Amino acid sequence: MATALIILAAGMGTRMQSDLPKVLHEVAQAPLLAHAIQAGAALEPERVVIVAGHGAEAVSAVAQEWDPRAQVVVQDEQLGTGHAVLQARAALDGFDGTAIVLYGDTPFIRSESLARMQEALTSHAVAVLGFEAADPARYGRLVTEGDALLRIVEFKDASAAERAITFCNSGVVAARADLLFSLLDEVGNDNAAGEYYLTDVVALARARGLEAAAVRCDEAETLGVNTRAQLAEAEAAFQARARAEHMDNGVTLIAPETVFFAHDTVIGRDTVIEPNVVFGPDVTIENGVHLRAFSHLEGAHVSRGAVVGPYARLRPGAELAEDVKIGNFVEIKNALIDEGAKVNHLSYVGDAHVGAAANLGAGTITCNYDGVMKHRTEIGAGAFIGSNTMLVAPVRVGAEAMTGSGSVITEDVEDGALALARAKQVTKPGFARRLRDMLKARKAAQSKGDA
Amino acid sequence: MATALIILAAGMGTRMQSDLPKVLHEVAQAPLLAHAIQAGAALEPERVVIVAGHGAEAVSAVAQEWDPRAQVVVQDEQLGTGHAVLQARAALDGFDGTAIVLYGDTPFIRSESLARMQEALTSHAVAVLGFEAADPARYGRLVTEGDALLRIVEFKDASAAERAITFCNSGVVAARADLLFSLLDEVGNDNAAGEYYLTDVVALARARGLEAAAVRCDEAETLGVNTRAQLAEAEAAFQARARAEHMDNGVTLIAPETVFFAHDTVIGRDTVIEPNVVFGPDVTIENGVHLRAFSHLEGAHVSRGAVVGPYARLRPGAELAEDVKIGNFVEIKNALIDEGAKVNHLSYVGDAHVGAAANLGAGTITCNYDGVMKHRTEIGAGAFIGSNTMLVAPVRVGAEAMTGSGSVITEDVEDGALALARAKQVTKPGFARRLRDMLKARKAAQSKGDA
Amino acid sequence: MATALIILAAGMGTRMQSDLPKVLHEVAQAPLLAHAIQAGAALEPERVVIVAGHGAEAVSAVAQEWDPRAQVVVQDEQLGTGHAVLQARAALDGFDGTAIVLYGDTPFIRSESLARMQEALTSHAVAVLGFEAADPARYGRLVTEGDALLRIVEFKDASAAERAITFCNSGVVAARADLLFSLLDEVGNDNAAGEYYLTDVVALARARGLEAAAVRCDEAETLGVNTRAQLAEAEAAFQARARAEHMDNGVTLIAPETVFFAHDTVIGRDTVIEPNVVFGPDVTIENGVHLRAFSHLEGAHVSRGAVVGPYARLRPGAELAEDVKIGNFVEIKNALIDEGAKVNHLSYVGDAHVGAAANLGAGTITCNYDGVMKHRTEIGAGAFIGSNTMLVAPVRVGAEAMTGSGSVITEDVEDGALALARAKQVTKPGFARRLRDMLKARKAAQSKGDA
Repeated sequence: MATALIILAAGMGTRMQSDLPKVLHEVAQAPLLAHAIQAGAALEPERVVIVAGHGAEAVSAVAQEWDPRAQVVVQDEQLGTGHAVLQARAALDGFDGTAIVLYGDTPFIRSESLARMQEALTSHAVAVLGFEAADPARYGRLVTEGDALLRIVEFKDASAAERAITFCNSGVVAARADLLFSLLDEVGNDNAAGEYYLTDVVALARARGLEAAAVRCDEAETLGVNTRAQLAEAEAAFQARARAEHMDNGVTLIAPETVFFAHDTVIGRDTVIEPNVVFGPDVTIENGVHLRAFSHLEGAHVSRGAVVGPYARLRPGAELAEDVKIGNFVEIKNALIDEGAKVNHLSYVGDAHVGAAANLGAGTITCNYDGVMKHRTEIGAGAFIGSNTMLVAPVRVGAEAMTGSGSVITEDVEDGALALARAKQVTKPGFARRLRDMLKARKAAQSKGDA
Repeated sequence: MATALIILAAGMGTRMQSDLPKVLHEVAQAPLLAHAIQAGAALEPERVVIVAGHGAEAVSAVAQEWDPRAQVVVQDEQLGTGHAVLQARAALDGFDGTAIVLYGDTPFIRSESLARMQEALTSHAVAVLGFEAADPARYGRLVTEGDALLRIVEFKDASAAERAITFCNSGVVAARADLLFSLLDEVGNDNAAGEYYLTDVVALARARGLEAAAVRCDEAETLGVNTRAQLAEAEAAFQARARAEHMDNGVTLIAPETVFFAHDTVIGRDTVIEPNVVFGPDVTIENGVHLRAFSHLEGAHVSRGAVVGPYARLRPGAELAEDVKIGNFVEIKNALIDEGAKVNHLSYVGDAHVGAAANLGAGTITCNYDGVMKHRTEIGAGAFIGSNTMLVAPVRVGAEAMTGSGSVITEDVEDGALALARAKQVTKPGFARRLRDMLKARKAAQSKGDA
Repeated sequence: MATALIILAAGMGTRMQSDLPKVLHEVAQAPLLAHAIQAGAALEPERVVIVAGHGAEAVSAVAQEWDPRAQVVVQDEQLGTGHAVLQARAALDGFDGTAIVLYGDTPFIRSESLARMQEALTSHAVAVLGFEAADPARYGRLVTEGDALLRIVEFKDASAAERAITFCNSGVVAARADLLFSLLDEVGNDNAAGEYYLTDVVALARARGLEAAAVRCDEAETLGVNTRAQLAEAEAAFQARARAEHMDNGVTLIAPETVFFAHDTVIGRDTVIEPNVVFGPDVTIENGVHLRAFSHLEGAHVSRGAVVGPYARLRPGAELAEDVKIGNFVEIKNALIDEGAKVNHLSYVGDAHVGAAANLGAGTITCNYDGVMKHRTEIGAGAFIGSNTMLVAPVRVGAEAMTGSGSVITEDVEDGALALARAKQVTKPGFARRLRDMLKARKAAQSKGDA
């Protein structure tokens, strides 16, 4: 049966103390909302409806970035989860299938749990996702009989026996869309908060003689974000899981707690990652790479046998072929560095192609920006770029060519040629001593003047 | 009533294994002594007396740096806390008010706790600060009846019933100064250590028919530093609290445990701080700033919308206006970077003013030091500094001016002008290949010679 | 009595998910195998036999690097620990003394524990190292009577009473070599795994009327490495111990959990280490050094009073004399920096000698590599190297000499001389504005063309 996701993403997130809508705060370098979209994506939903509210425009832009088919509807007043879901009705007009309600601030629900909810709907009218709470505190309790969910009791309404239940409500609900909306029409707001609660659909369904199912997930999946501290906890939970997975896959993390992955980082076996390495989005590291301490990578691909860092920064479009060496205080952006090439120290290589086995000396800079446009630099295989060479793009240095250190290269250098742009050294004997004496005298005079 | 702080800071700190007096070791980049001075500062004390001993000269210098009115008296022999406090008597000659005895190695006593001690003195002659100990171990116990402190029992003298008490002595004592010194005159040293104990004043006061009060604080406030490990624990306690406070105020810390604040760091709401950022003293960050990974800031002010790092170092006097971008491997010192200006890569900007929307290329260096004096660099609004430009200060580059990459600029450049200082490129066909062959031949010959 | 170490290092380490033999994975920047060799080295063994299997060639190379006298024997089939030890028999032909069996994947056994095993052999025929397990789980249990070891019971064969024993088998065994091999001849493989177990020698010895001893060590010593997660745990255990030891010795670690030591790091008293400092092998830091945040040191020696970092990288052969300052984004390799010299910003100094009190400006680079060979740079005492000076080695700058910023120095500069290699600045009024207009027009034209 076709599936529709309804993701509630309207909350203000007052406790975040932020101008940014809560669901746009990030974990693992992706917005909370994107995590919810991706959890649901495994169900191959036919429709994705985001119920936005505060900051709806920004939420809409992010939603469409992560799922171009996402429809965003706006809940102008926040009148409760039941009311929020009802905002999706028009968007799902004509949709015939199952609706699953997720939350934009709950990033860790697993696809497997949602699949089990779908499965439960083959024999039940409504499915609710619950979890065994280590400390049930004030969560709503799920009263069950076997798989059957009898009712959801809010903590404040629960009897002592019900409060002893540790199986709690995650808020995630699934049902046929038409049934869900029909039940929501009956939900009232006769409660202390004056809100329409989604969870009331369970009682209403049972009142119609329909069955509800309780489906279990891990408590960790239900972690929600309401404060910056919880955001940090969610990040920590993500990182702990990612570190464990990478180690299981044969990656050495010398100090796992100091390595930060993005949501989509891919690392090959027998890669060694030293302490203090940070990954931005869209990084793929092949097998047998050595990432040294204090490196920062985003949007980069690193091939087998490469050594990166310490203090290397790979920016989007950095493509390192096998056995490349990128050393300290080096920035690579939008550049292909071919097999065995070396950029060892204090360099900026942007919008460039560096040929195989080329060696770029310390202080090499591709001058890729003229103040208006970016231009490309081509460096041939086996070229030797002298220290502190400025490569004023667009420019090409040929294969096995050389540049003299301190040269500003503005014209192409043919294969095997040597290019120099250098003033002749002039040495003035005794001049440094006289200059220093003069400067000291001037300083003394100034100090006297200041006094 | 007027207040005097008496801060005991004479200890050698043998277990620190240090030549530095214990109270000068730092937490959150301020000496322990400064934390004690600042806790007391909220009481607006009329007098501050530091009782120094080991390293008194260094202690005195730091004390006066943090409170210029601080009087430092020297305790030549360490004969106990009672003896130490008595050294403050002459310095408080003629002082009419309350004296509060603090410890230079106990940095976390809160001003609120001291205020409650002052309050207690309105109805009692002596006040002692105590805490509920999670593990009372060998602390002295406070025997109380309601608010009244009956006596302080050292652990070794305590009965089984007294050892069951978990309310323990912090050592912080307050009383009218004249009474305190008068009581201390009666304190003897008839004990195993042969020392004069400040805490004996409680029994002596009660022997005179005076009342003593026990005032409660959190155990965390009483954390004292005797070893480097405890110093690290104190630092960790400070950082944990600071991180939580910043998050509560609406700052995102992606990995809170990797961000280190100084005692006075100010961060605005909706600022995002990536992993591994370290703050030195005197940093103010406005709202909506993005501090990227591996950045280090001290003595800097960063305005709204600025992006700093990764690998940016802001040193004292760095002043970034709105929407400034400071990129990787960039050092800014004593420089105002105006609105929207960019210094993206591998640069050193010191003693300078960079105008609005100016763009400094990779490898820009302000040559601010001539070996004797520092000089200033002025860069106009909208200027474009080519990569690897040396700006030999004092020098001015005008608004919307440009410099060619690799230029050494020694003379002022007027508005809208282009300055170049560049040798012409000379390219020698085939020369790189011949040079490489020659070098290889030379190496081979040398290797042969070595063999 | 003479001692021989037999170190079992044949395991595949399947759960490591690695092409590298398990014992070559590193903790504290030394292979696991090296830790085992070093634990045994304190016994001054006459012989060291490594039983290799998977990756025997690589294991052999590492073994000989850490102990040149090590003999490596190959166990072609992995038929159990008893079988593995028997592979050492030929290598120990003619050896008359005690054999101690260690494990290449168990890096933390202490020399003191091994010495106690030797001691036990003065009164017992066989000694086995055991530990009190916090959670005995499925370890083999040591059944003892006083010091006497009665038998070793595998968990699966243990009675309920035996399972209640918490004293467990580490696997480390010692006995006279001839006795050990004689006992091993009798060990059978009549068990579920079809393997020959070393631990069977205890029962066999007792069957001959010989006594066995159980020697105690801490559970932490027996930590073995079977997965990357356990490798990370071993690293963490090493680091925790190293941090505590350095703090005990009078080193300040502001954030101990962010500092990573190598197995051989030496740090002097009153050295302060800021957050995020990483040590590679072979670093010695004297007293009173300040290592600032984000620094990385390997193969370096730093003298009293030096300040290093933030973002300083010292590579092998970096030798800093007293009061040297190495600043941000600076790399030092194979270079002696003499007393009081400064390299403050964005520099690469390799294969060089920098004289006392010399000052190297920002962007100084020693061009030490000509594409074929490395050459040396000499900088005299008190020299002043202008910013962005390229020193094309081999080259010498004399004492108190100066170089102009932006100069490429290819010829020696005598003492007190000033060397310049600089093109004259040419300034073209109004040219920047016209150039920018031209570039913008060109960009607009291109955009039009693209459209």
